[in-house]
Amino acid sequence: MNVDAPSSVPAKAIAEAISQIKQVLGDKGWLEEPTDTLKYRTDWRGGTVGEALLVARPDSTEQVSRVVRLCHGAGIAVTAQGGNTGLVLGSIPTEPQPSIVVSLDRMMKIRALDADNFALVAEAGCVIQTLQQAAAEVGRLYPLSLASEGSSTVGGTLSTNAGGNNTIKFGNAREQVLGLEVVLPDGTVFEGLNTLRKNNTGYDLKQLFIGAEGTLGIITAAAMRLMPAPKLRETAMLSVPTPEAAQTLLSRARELSGDTVIAFELMPRRCIDLAMKHIEGIVDPIDTPSPWYVLIEMATSSEIDDLRGKLEAIFGEAMENGLVTDGVIAESETQRAQIWRIREEQAEAGRREGGSISCDVSVPVSRVAEFLAQAREMCERELEGVQLNTFGHMGDGNIHYGIRKPESMSDAAWGQRKGDMSDRISALCAEFGGSFSAEHGIGGLKREDFRRYTPPSRVALMQAIKAAIDPDGVMNPGKIF
Amino acid sequence: MNVDAPSSVPAKAIAEAISQIKQVLGDKGWLEEPTDTLKYRTDWRGGTVGEALLVARPDSTEQVSRVVRLCHGAGIAVTAQGGNTGLVLGSIPTEPQPSIVVSLDRMMKIRALDADNFALVAEAGCVIQTLQQAAAEVGRLYPLSLASEGSSTVGGTLSTNAGGNNTIKFGNAREQVLGLEVVLPDGTVFEGLNTLRKNNTGYDLKQLFIGAEGTLGIITAAAMRLMPAPKLRETAMLSVPTPEAAQTLLSRARELSGDTVIAFELMPRRCIDLAMKHIEGIVDPIDTPSPWYVLIEMATSSEIDDLRGKLEAIFGEAMENGLVTDGVIAESETQRAQIWRIREEQAEAGRREGGSISCDVSVPVSRVAEFLAQAREMCERELEGVQLNTFGHMGDGNIHYGIRKPESMSDAAWGQRKGDMSDRISALCAEFGGSFSAEHGIGGLKREDFRRYTPPSRVALMQAIKAAIDPDGVMNPGKIF
Repeated sequence: MNVDAPSSVPAKAIAEAISQIKQVLGDKGWLEEPTDTLKYRTDWRGGTVGEALLVARPDSTEQVSRVVRLCHGAGIAVTAQGGNTGLVLGSIPTEPQPSIVVSLDRMMKIRALDADNFALVAEAGCVIQTLQQAAAEVGRLYPLSLASEGSSTVGGTLSTNAGGNNTIKFGNAREQVLGLEVVLPDGTVFEGLNTLRKNNTGYDLKQLFIGAEGTLGIITAAAMRLMPAPKLRETAMLSVPTPEAAQTLLSRARELSGDTVIAFELMPRRCIDLAMKHIEGIVDPIDTPSPWYVLIEMATSSEIDDLRGKLEAIFGEAMENGLVTDGVIAESETQRAQIWRIREEQAEAGRREGGSISCDVSVPVSRVAEFLAQAREMCERELEGVQLNTFGHMGDGNIHYGIRKPESMSDAAWGQRKGDMSDRISALCAEFGGSFSAEHGIGGLKREDFRRYTPPSRVALMQAIKAAIDPDGVMNPGKIF
Repeated sequence: MNVDAPSSVPAKAIAEAISQIKQVLGDKGWLEEPTDTLKYRTDWRGGTVGEALLVARPDSTEQVSRVVRLCHGAGIAVTAQGGNTGLVLGSIPTEPQPSIVVSLDRMMKIRALDADNFALVAEAGCVIQTLQQAAAEVGRLYPLSLASEGSSTVGGTLSTNAGGNNTIKFGNAREQVLGLEVVLPDGTVFEGLNTLRKNNTGYDLKQLFIGAEGTLGIITAAAMRLMPAPKLRETAMLSVPTPEAAQTLLSRARELSGDTVIAFELMPRRCIDLAMKHIEGIVDPIDTPSPWYVLIEMATSSEIDDLRGKLEAIFGEAMENGLVTDGVIAESETQRAQIWRIREEQAEAGRREGGSISCDVSVPVSRVAEFLAQAREMCERELEGVQLNTFGHMGDGNIHYGIRKPESMSDAAWGQRKGDMSDRISALCAEFGGSFSAEHGIGGLKREDFRRYTPPSRVALMQAIKAAIDPDGVMNPGKIF
């Protein structure tokens, strides 16, 4: 056990609390040996390993409550952890103070599933894919869909307000939540689980914990809305001459499709080239190359809808007025998967290509094209020979802005320059009324950006909330603020 | 000027602050004579008139800020007011302490409207109908729709998280909000206006002010999302044998319609009878009487959708399996209006019939039928000869539960009994995991219910938030808590 307590916290009190926590959890409920706890202390990207006195693995809300109460009493910090797939150092301890990790990975039950209420209640450790499958079995859709859905969890996606591919239609994680159960910093259980659609009885406190990255409490369970399961789905890759054309296409597609567009991804030619270069089995979907592409997907729960007819109408009209120059509609599930793979393998292809940074930014949907143009101009001015890979969820104005080291630049020079380039993208975003962190959050990684781009009135209010709910600062210290 | 200051607040400081407030606002910006201020101090239902030193009518956020700062300094309470159409005594001063009303009725500009961003920014005093029209002019829909939309405002509907008819499809007022501008209790302006779809940069503070009924600050402007404007609409009145049948029909209609159901209202036969008795021009929509009816409306932005085909498929399938026994599809806008009038005139018809109470409750959508059965049993057991009129937004589990004085009961006896009956409905709701105030909020009227049915952990957290943001308790005292 590695007790590096600051002098203000008596080591004896800490050791005593840890011992009591072990008793609360039972033999299967904790890990202590550094080799056993390593994976819980290691950031998903692999570069950072934190310290933890213990990894607690409670199997009930009551256990979480008792563990947190003991930590609160002894001044031990608590970092809650879901699938540990976050990208901003949010789910491992990063501060020198004595900490434990509370992993929710044993709390994975679906407590209730009610198809006619279009709702379910699941524990925090339940994996998103498990939820999706459970919903599908009763003819419903749990709409959140993201690359990490095989390992990310209810608690993690809610604590980070995860986004993903289908936000344009269904909103972020926040929009799926009907009610929450949360263990507060002193161990009190906030009982806010309900599945009501209308309930105006005071402040909507659950909203505070969504996207708070574990700094206000630990989400132990959530009630979430479901949608009717899709029966028909249509997917196409369309060649567009410019991002402006993609923007106009997006508006028209939402209208003409009856708002059945569930994904609208913008990609430059470079995405196709990178995927074909690095990923086995990727095929160029359209014979003639185009500077830009749109991946559009539509879905409906109505088996009697003419969804294909709508997609063809959108495609045909856009060809006529020059918004689209070519395209392919997926004729099979295999072809659909091939199209999606180009988009989904971008992270891996970029990693293999090496030497790049990616900024997760957003601007108003109608200003994506303008932002891309100004950002390109800035990048080319600052970095001769720069290569950009800028793709993402255009339907939400959310661009993953990739900047690659110019070939002629040394690794050392790039190492010195890349932080500055990231800052410049964030600053440009701010000029567009945009966000320097669209999906990924702040965590331990983007605190400097947070301080720089957040209006003082907003920071002050956040600090007041933090002080009101976690006055001792035991919940996930070193994150956000 | 009526300065009833408690001894702790010097009357001189108050008079001085009022004088300064007048200067800030200019001649057109305030009202003081009791006859002039009467309508701002009178509750919409007419029974309650509050006291106010002044009605401030600022025309800018800066004026609101300066007025609130002066009130804060002098210990004057501030009640913000929008259209003053609330039903729970939330928008007039009700406490003995010195108060002003801040009416937002001069702040009615639409600051920005961006069709391709599916968003607009409007000031708090902007009337909902004005928003709806502005959106429609650029091919968009502002989805909130409620009976009072001709006078209710952006600020009022957000502060009360208004619901209405189309919640099943588009959510409550909360779900429409992308960003807020709020004047905090000390006069600071919280600058949270943005139109981003993804923005994970700290706590989502705007959520706190939505549904807070003016107890945490004054919403001065809001950025809100828009949807593609509907091009096709279908409306039908269907006879259903039981609420259970209506529930099953609802699930199937959501599926088969491709989730284009925008309203699903349940009504008993009594609704038709009452409307025909009291309202000019109401016609029985279906020849053979039925114990229950469903008003269903579907809409889509796709002009090439076969929406009628979908409605007919739903109707046909439901007739075959006995969920629906008869029905009429509106063949014209006139016929559609006739059908809707039956639903919309229920409040007026109930008022003319006289001697009834209405509880605004919600339960999980799948338990509406069970709740109605148990509530009826309870009412009939408690009140011999009781007449019930229980209708509402079944798609949201939101029932307006009307209980009428039995004919044989004296007005005096009813006066003694009706509070108890309302309590019993609230208590039954709680057993169903429901809400004693689905749409209307707490205000000054439902504080006792709030104290009775809210878990202590929730009350404590709300009090901590209130103390953190409004430590002096100047914002709309006597409401919620």
